[in-house]
Amino acid sequence: MSTELASLPGLTKSRIEALSDGIFAVAMTLLVLDIKPPAVIEAAALPRELLALWPRCLSYAVSFLMLGIYWVGQHNQFHLIRCADRTLLWINIVFLMTISFVPFSTALLSAYPLWPSAQTVYGANLIAIGLVLLWHWMYATHRHRLVDPELDDRMNRFVIRRILIGPALFALAIVLSSLSAVASLILYVVAPLIYVLPGRVDRHWQPSAH
Amino acid sequence: MSTELASLPGLTKSRIEALSDGIFAVAMTLLVLDIKPPAVIEAAALPRELLALWPRCLSYAVSFLMLGIYWVGQHNQFHLIRCADRTLLWINIVFLMTISFVPFSTALLSAYPLWPSAQTVYGANLIAIGLVLLWHWMYATHRHRLVDPELDDRMNRFVIRRILIGPALFALAIVLSSLSAVASLILYVVAPLIYVLPGRVDRHWQPSAH
Amino acid sequence: MSTELASLPGLTKSRIEALSDGIFAVAMTLLVLDIKPPAVIEAAALPRELLALWPRCLSYAVSFLMLGIYWVGQHNQFHLIRCADRTLLWINIVFLMTISFVPFSTALLSAYPLWPSAQTVYGANLIAIGLVLLWHWMYATHRHRLVDPELDDRMNRFVIRRILIGPALFALAIVLSSLSAVASLILYVVAPLIYVLPGRVDRHWQPSAH
Amino acid sequence: MSTELASLPGLTKSRIEALSDGIFAVAMTLLVLDIKPPAVIEAAALPRELLALWPRCLSYAVSFLMLGIYWVGQHNQFHLIRCADRTLLWINIVFLMTISFVPFSTALLSAYPLWPSAQTVYGANLIAIGLVLLWHWMYATHRHRLVDPELDDRMNRFVIRRILIGPALFALAIVLSSLSAVASLILYVVAPLIYVLPGRVDRHWQPSAH
Repeated sequence: MSTELASLPGLTKSRIEALSDGIFAVAMTLLVLDIKPPAVIEAAALPRELLALWPRCLSYAVSFLMLGIYWVGQHNQFHLIRCADRTLLWINIVFLMTISFVPFSTALLSAYPLWPSAQTVYGANLIAIGLVLLWHWMYATHRHRLVDPELDDRMNRFVIRRILIGPALFALAIVLSSLSAVASLILYVVAPLIYVLPGRVDRHWQPSAH
Repeated sequence: MSTELASLPGLTKSRIEALSDGIFAVAMTLLVLDIKPPAVIEAAALPRELLALWPRCLSYAVSFLMLGIYWVGQHNQFHLIRCADRTLLWINIVFLMTISFVPFSTALLSAYPLWPSAQTVYGANLIAIGLVLLWHWMYATHRHRLVDPELDDRMNRFVIRRILIGPALFALAIVLSSLSAVASLILYVVAPLIYVLPGRVDRHWQPSAH
Repeated sequence: MSTELASLPGLTKSRIEALSDGIFAVAMTLLVLDIKPPAVIEAAALPRELLALWPRCLSYAVSFLMLGIYWVGQHNQFHLIRCADRTLLWINIVFLMTISFVPFSTALLSAYPLWPSAQTVYGANLIAIGLVLLWHWMYATHRHRLVDPELDDRMNRFVIRRILIGPALFALAIVLSSLSAVASLILYVVAPLIYVLPGRVDRHWQPSAH
Repeated sequence: MSTELASLPGLTKSRIEALSDGIFAVAMTLLVLDIKPPAVIEAAALPRELLALWPRCLSYAVSFLMLGIYWVGQHNQFHLIRCADRTLLWINIVFLMTISFVPFSTALLSAYPLWPSAQTVYGANLIAIGLVLLWHWMYATHRHRLVDPELDDRMNRFVIRRILIGPALFALAIVLSSLSAVASLILYVVAPLIYVLPGRVDRHWQPSAH
């Protein structure tokens, strides 16, 4: 068995990716269940009630983008990881557990967008995702355990710095939440844009003509 | 890293497709959660209550077909796109965000099928999907950035016209909604049929015997 | 474009399968949302309330198996279909629309297991699935349009007979429902077993040693 | 047909895996729907209400890990199974039916974490999963029906013992539940860790450098 399982590292990677894509897809789509049609009895009242849904729509957009960012992050790591072992598999399942929790923490933030404890739970969820993703990377790259031996240290440090932006921002948002809930909320909204807008990473990731 | 990531454009495409198929599948299936068994206390009342579900069933069918149409549309584009870059990846995630919103806008239309504001939100959601899909195409084809250099202009204009049918129809439906809610609703029901029924595009897409 | 799209029939098939697997997976899993923990205030009352969930558990098992049967049926067809065209694609999307409706018709039957109208809606849903699957097969095999030219008529008739068992049984169940609701319910429970238990088809489908 | 279906054992395997990955992904993500934002009217009450969610969060984590364990278990079997037949396909669908039931039994345990009947249903669900997985393995390996003829008996017995750990622990938890509900709950929480923590199996499953 040892040979058979060990000789199929690609299969292990592809099956982790299939489960991950499924969980990301479900978690991203479940977010919308938190936005419900308002119950009104006359047509004239509906527009105002719809406008009142904006905090939920904003939470939806922010969480959807954050999940998109972490999905891209996990896949970028798998680009550089050559094979998986049992420990990496379980780090991934813990990672997916934190991903799957986002529909709850988003629903909480939607319900109480300006309350410190809701902001803290939301931020803690996102920090947990980031730290598990960092653990995933550190485990895979430690002594080049599961990555290309030629992966250089500069690249390694670049990936680590990039992962840490999220947890750092969300830790700041949690601290801010007890001082100014509005400032904290703004930080949560701005955070995904920092990742999505083109930056230095783009120079490394150009389409190839072939 | 630049070489490794750049040399795997196919992987990037296939992973976007896996996430997209997942999100489409979940969004299409969640639509049914909006149709709930009526609560009745005697058997004789059930048939009438079931018949009263027709607006929800109609919304279900229309939204399911529209999601099917956009799923086909996104995949047709990927047939012609040779590789993906980071910007295309993010346009796709924004596209999926508008797709994932459809269960909400459908539930809203189901609840208030003849109210202008519900019709407007539904139409705006469908227009947003169409416009992001257009942006996706324009970005990929601009100066043949990500498509085959031999893709001709006629084909390009044909795809653009085809994408624009949807937003044009739905903009008309929104304008109509304040004049005649029934006419607007009819337009929403007819729209998917325009795409589904065989048309000029079929001549381009015949099965091959090999 | 005609050449590019026509030369990728395999891609078209595999992408329909990916969407189908996703929709089947979500529909099959959503069935369980219909079984909810009973609300009781003392521990002694819970066992009795749990036993009272048996009609929902039975509906869950029957619908799960029926969806499994239709999933196998669709995939068996794709084994024999060599390529897809636009019409087949849309027949599939209509097929998936009837699949996606099953969580609703199951919830209805769970709520009113012995009421004729609930039994009729459930049966009509299953009949619709079977007939669309038959349409799918007839379209693909008409003049060997999308199947191997060597597919023989005996095989063709065998597949048609096998598909028709379901709609025939469910039509009988609908007729029975107004005469004896219990008999109708028993028919729904027995139906999946007819497909699942080994039969003549097994002689055709043995594992190969290579 | 016999040749065509029999000559595609790989396709059969890969399609079972695609449906399985989808059902696991949905079931794992649906678990979170059981944790709902508490309804409070003043910010000061929210932290206490959030802390009161701990049994639900614990159930979420335990069930997520258990599903992860069974997902790994099913895939490990498919590593060693060379092809699928119709019986194996249906054993898999029954397996997925027990997997899909976990969101219900988890919601039940979350609602009544210390009541024997809830603990029994949860344990019985997990035992059923384990026994169906054992049936799957016994069927495939009986007279080396669907596995490599060189698979040795020691490996076979090792897999069987490993599968049986779960049902044995959960049977013990059910017996304990009527004696000491707390002890039973602790057993449920500890069980996944026994599988997840590195053990003897790791010596067999090392990453390969190539």
